[in-house]
Amino acid sequence: MKKPKWVVEKEQAKRAAASETLWLFGLHAVRDALRNPRREKLRLIVTKNALDKLAEAVAQAEIEPEMSDPRRFDAPLDPQSVHQGAALEVKPLDWGPVEEVCLGDGIRPPCVVLLDRVTDPHNVGAILRSAEVFGAAAVIAPRHHSAPETGALAKTASGALERQPYLRVTNLARAIDQLRNMGYQVLGLAGEAEQEIGVALAERAGRPVALVLGAEGPGLRQKTRESCDALVRIDFAGAFGSLNVSNAAAVSLYAATRPGG
Amino acid sequence: MKKPKWVVEKEQAKRAAASETLWLFGLHAVRDALRNPRREKLRLIVTKNALDKLAEAVAQAEIEPEMSDPRRFDAPLDPQSVHQGAALEVKPLDWGPVEEVCLGDGIRPPCVVLLDRVTDPHNVGAILRSAEVFGAAAVIAPRHHSAPETGALAKTASGALERQPYLRVTNLARAIDQLRNMGYQVLGLAGEAEQEIGVALAERAGRPVALVLGAEGPGLRQKTRESCDALVRIDFAGAFGSLNVSNAAAVSLYAATRPGG
Repeated sequence: MKKPKWVVEKEQAKRAAASETLWLFGLHAVRDALRNPRREKLRLIVTKNALDKLAEAVAQAEIEPEMSDPRRFDAPLDPQSVHQGAALEVKPLDWGPVEEVCLGDGIRPPCVVLLDRVTDPHNVGAILRSAEVFGAAAVIAPRHHSAPETGALAKTASGALERQPYLRVTNLARAIDQLRNMGYQVLGLAGEAEQEIGVALAERAGRPVALVLGAEGPGLRQKTRESCDALVRIDFAGAFGSLNVSNAAAVSLYAATRPGG
Repeated sequence: MKKPKWVVEKEQAKRAAASETLWLFGLHAVRDALRNPRREKLRLIVTKNALDKLAEAVAQAEIEPEMSDPRRFDAPLDPQSVHQGAALEVKPLDWGPVEEVCLGDGIRPPCVVLLDRVTDPHNVGAILRSAEVFGAAAVIAPRHHSAPETGALAKTASGALERQPYLRVTNLARAIDQLRNMGYQVLGLAGEAEQEIGVALAERAGRPVALVLGAEGPGLRQKTRESCDALVRIDFAGAFGSLNVSNAAAVSLYAATRPGG
């Protein structure tokens, strides 16, 4: 019997996802990935100079480096990439399902960040960095219309991509439901909201919190808004202006994780 | 009698500073500058398409646009600039001296941000944006070793460059002394500091606060550290990582300006 079309398509998508790889570049990003035992490494292309600097991490990762001439560095990178003579092909990290990753450490109430169509890799990289600093359990984004793991994102994340769970899910509203079922309070950031984030967090002190941020301009989509428990704003003194999304994320994470709400 | 060499040099530097101009680009940045009566405008180069979109602001600014073919846009910009067919040559804004700009509005205790050798225009642009949002009286940086007003900075600042005082001073330590003489509490951000910023701010509730941030990596210079009243840190949950400087600025500004410290 012939397989139905949807089964064939699902299998194809699975194979495509399984074969998906990305190129990390730059000494810091490559070193962090080499040192990460959970990171599946495929090819390492380095100059003599870069290999000297990465020797310890290369030995630890047990990967055979391919040497390249610095004048004709032959990794498939964007020509503007500041690769510093090091490029590493890897598989995206598999962090596991929302229900497991977002359990938290059992010591403090966990906090997660959800991104609704934030597509700029520099913003997402900076958000991963802040999420790690403030101990967020995860950053969650939809698989489509969000920034995928890329070398540029890894560079902005400054090592956080290797350590900070970044989950890309099929459906953001479903992930929000899962978090709510786990006991999370879901707060959507919206400039026009009436409640100030500090006040909203104080009311929810000691509970797990999910912070949902939208892209600059469009903000949260209607469906995402409706799936939040409350909309909250960051108090602005000025009459003009708005925060960059990575700055809004940092402020929200600070507010949500500081002792005493 | 011939003028001494140092007088000649000082006069030359003054003339150079007076003639210093920069090119703003992109519809938003150009529109914001055209609408700013304090901004001295020199030349406007636009495509037909861009002029249609900027017509109102151009009429308001009373500047004669120079038309340019979109295929050979002839403003002296970096070729990677996303100019959207609009470029405006302007003089840097003169905000006036520290003692006047940092007086505050008389309603709330003022807050200022000082940047110790933060050279990345994207970081400084994002910091100007956050400073405006949280109502900071000024962002102050040394004239040398900091990001000058440029088109790229203006673009990241998303309009804030026209509205948020950005003072570039000869000597940062002297500006810190001036602020202290005005009654400011000067807090330097340093990862290894013992006191948490929220605690330090609560102790100083109701007083003007100056937040001093250093570049990523080197942090605050020794001389800058010594001129602070106290060093404070942002509480980190994770064992790894550090905040991007613009995120650290946003968090500090939020902490310093929220009601109740």
